[in-house]
Amino acid sequence: MDIKILKESVTFPKGFKATGGHTGIKKQDMDMAIILSDYPAEAAGCFTLNIVKAAPVLWDMEIIKNKNTVKAVVINSGNANACTGEKGYEDCKKTAETFAEKNQLSPHEVFICSTGVIGVPLPMEKIEKGVNVLSENLDYALSAGNLAAKAIMTTDTYEKTAACEFFISGKPVRIGAMAKGSGMIHPNMATMLGFINTDIAISKDLLQKALTEAIEKTFNMITVDGDTSTNDTVLLLANGGAKNEKIVSEGPEYDIFKLALLQICKALAISIAKDGEGATKLMEIAVIGAASEKDASLIAKSVAGSSLFKAALFGEDANWGRVLCAMGYSGGFFNPESTVLSFHSFENGVKKEIYLMENGSPLSFSEEEAKNILKENEIYINILLKDGNGEAKAWGCDLTYDYVKINGDYRS
Amino acid sequence: MDIKILKESVTFPKGFKATGGHTGIKKQDMDMAIILSDYPAEAAGCFTLNIVKAAPVLWDMEIIKNKNTVKAVVINSGNANACTGEKGYEDCKKTAETFAEKNQLSPHEVFICSTGVIGVPLPMEKIEKGVNVLSENLDYALSAGNLAAKAIMTTDTYEKTAACEFFISGKPVRIGAMAKGSGMIHPNMATMLGFINTDIAISKDLLQKALTEAIEKTFNMITVDGDTSTNDTVLLLANGGAKNEKIVSEGPEYDIFKLALLQICKALAISIAKDGEGATKLMEIAVIGAASEKDASLIAKSVAGSSLFKAALFGEDANWGRVLCAMGYSGGFFNPESTVLSFHSFENGVKKEIYLMENGSPLSFSEEEAKNILKENEIYINILLKDGNGEAKAWGCDLTYDYVKINGDYRS
Repeated sequence: MDIKILKESVTFPKGFKATGGHTGIKKQDMDMAIILSDYPAEAAGCFTLNIVKAAPVLWDMEIIKNKNTVKAVVINSGNANACTGEKGYEDCKKTAETFAEKNQLSPHEVFICSTGVIGVPLPMEKIEKGVNVLSENLDYALSAGNLAAKAIMTTDTYEKTAACEFFISGKPVRIGAMAKGSGMIHPNMATMLGFINTDIAISKDLLQKALTEAIEKTFNMITVDGDTSTNDTVLLLANGGAKNEKIVSEGPEYDIFKLALLQICKALAISIAKDGEGATKLMEIAVIGAASEKDASLIAKSVAGSSLFKAALFGEDANWGRVLCAMGYSGGFFNPESTVLSFHSFENGVKKEIYLMENGSPLSFSEEEAKNILKENEIYINILLKDGNGEAKAWGCDLTYDYVKINGDYRS
Repeated sequence: MDIKILKESVTFPKGFKATGGHTGIKKQDMDMAIILSDYPAEAAGCFTLNIVKAAPVLWDMEIIKNKNTVKAVVINSGNANACTGEKGYEDCKKTAETFAEKNQLSPHEVFICSTGVIGVPLPMEKIEKGVNVLSENLDYALSAGNLAAKAIMTTDTYEKTAACEFFISGKPVRIGAMAKGSGMIHPNMATMLGFINTDIAISKDLLQKALTEAIEKTFNMITVDGDTSTNDTVLLLANGGAKNEKIVSEGPEYDIFKLALLQICKALAISIAKDGEGATKLMEIAVIGAASEKDASLIAKSVAGSSLFKAALFGEDANWGRVLCAMGYSGGFFNPESTVLSFHSFENGVKKEIYLMENGSPLSFSEEEAKNILKENEIYINILLKDGNGEAKAWGCDLTYDYVKINGDYRS
């Protein structure tokens, strides 16, 4: 099944309103987004593994654990509400209560997410006012979904959305999603907020299973800087608005949904890797022939995360020894003696490829040809092993002066 | 026992000659160093855990495994002889044979180390000529030791040496050492070559034990960029020139040697962290009160390695939330709710300190005061936990524009 990824956002599936706006947390950019479903939605979530968890992460995990249905998500950018102690949790709860009261919901139907600077209390007056004002602007329009996608950005340079439509027993079903990334992007889970809405009718357990599996191969395979944040969250709401017969067991219909969800997550994840802080290039690392899928995954992620190779990529320098070095310290097994390594990229749709190493020995290659491949914005690193059938892909970006600049003085 | 660290090098202990010079591997800088002991020395070594091991690492590991005594070390910089296949090993062997023949040794008495670019065959004609020419220049002088320390540098900005003298049963015993670091510096073992000579008489087994333990707390606690290289090697030669009664069992004399060795390793390790590629600041992370030493060590290393915190340090920005974040994804256990965090530095010997977090809640602090602390070149990050008695220190440096510059085009 080939699924076409559309540039729609979280309002694409039936019965989802959204909006975004400026409340004053940030100096002038938009800093709050809201999603509201017409119907109670089954909810699934995946959260940061950092043991320092921001207050909203704790709040959302509790909602998932209690298995109640959910109707809304309130997201603020500019302040992570992390390392804010007891008061941070109270502020988070208060935000949910304020929104719930305004919209006749229970607070436990309201997910809260925050992203931004750590260790600064939320400006609650602005947040409460913002929640009330923005509740009036909620809309089903594509433009409303785009506003939301823009409002969750921090150092992102563009909004990240993905959507698709497919059929379950003849009924059209939609997924619409948005995400933010940029810095602190590393498995497991990037600094990442991801919001995926769908109008499919499906049981909560299958929803969670599909999300967990999709994340493993997508959001958990990207890295920008090796830092796993305190706030990483992906939420998936399924409100049943498509009126398909509810999926309650695995089978062909579940498989279609799972595949569609995987494609949406992959599109968002690649979009995040490409927009890493200061990044000028996206790299895709493909490992095939590894002893196991786990080995392939460790090797791919390690190359994507190597500061040295990331800096070489920025310099368009074919320093392929750093790829081998990063493979070697990945913790994944492989035989260096049978490794084949190539880089490729595309120019006007035409593939340009260069082989750098074969069976453990360096190949002589033209530096000019290598430069010509590395000058493109999307670089593919291909690692062919002869150790088994394991394969994996990971995505990352180059390390640039701008990464240092952005992070040298983020708070001011 | 207080041990004074001297600025002497590898020729400080009795019976060790050295030299350094230019053979043509690099365009103009010195690129070869040699150490030669008058007497057969017991040898200990620690090597990279990267599964891609450079040819000289394999050669040296074999010598250590065979437990024979050693008389020489030949080191080249500018070319790592890594990822060079069968030929790389042959070249390494040939270098040892050439030196052995010139100096009437067996090839298996000659350690070989290489550092520099990966994946390029060694220029053997230059190496062989260099080995023969430099063999004529070997000398006991301090200046000869300093030449060697300079010749092993790659992107290091200064030579790294440390030495000390102490007494074992009334006999003066000396240690003299040199190291190179700079990029690809990460536990376990930095891209690091370290050469430690001592004239103590000690059994091989105790020598290895002391080295392994010292490295665990020093070279394995520094990070520059998270990349563990293919060539990391620390070699320790003990030639017995001090004529002390040979140490063959643990006891007070072994303890004195162990402590002295630890101080030497620590001085070299800190010197490497401070001279990380592009670095302008050294940071020391001290964790106390952790649940275990292992937790303390994981937490300290994680903070030292966080790209985000390293960039904040460069920007002299007291973004302490990134410290908590890095602690949280370290894999080490701690209670965020009882964590106390402070930064300090020294100005003209006077300590300046600021507290940022207490018992999980942020403290309000003066940004001006924080800037004033962070403007210094050596910054101390203090993490006080209430989880047990584990403690550890790690060292790292800031992430700067120059790191990106140096690594964006290293090969040209």
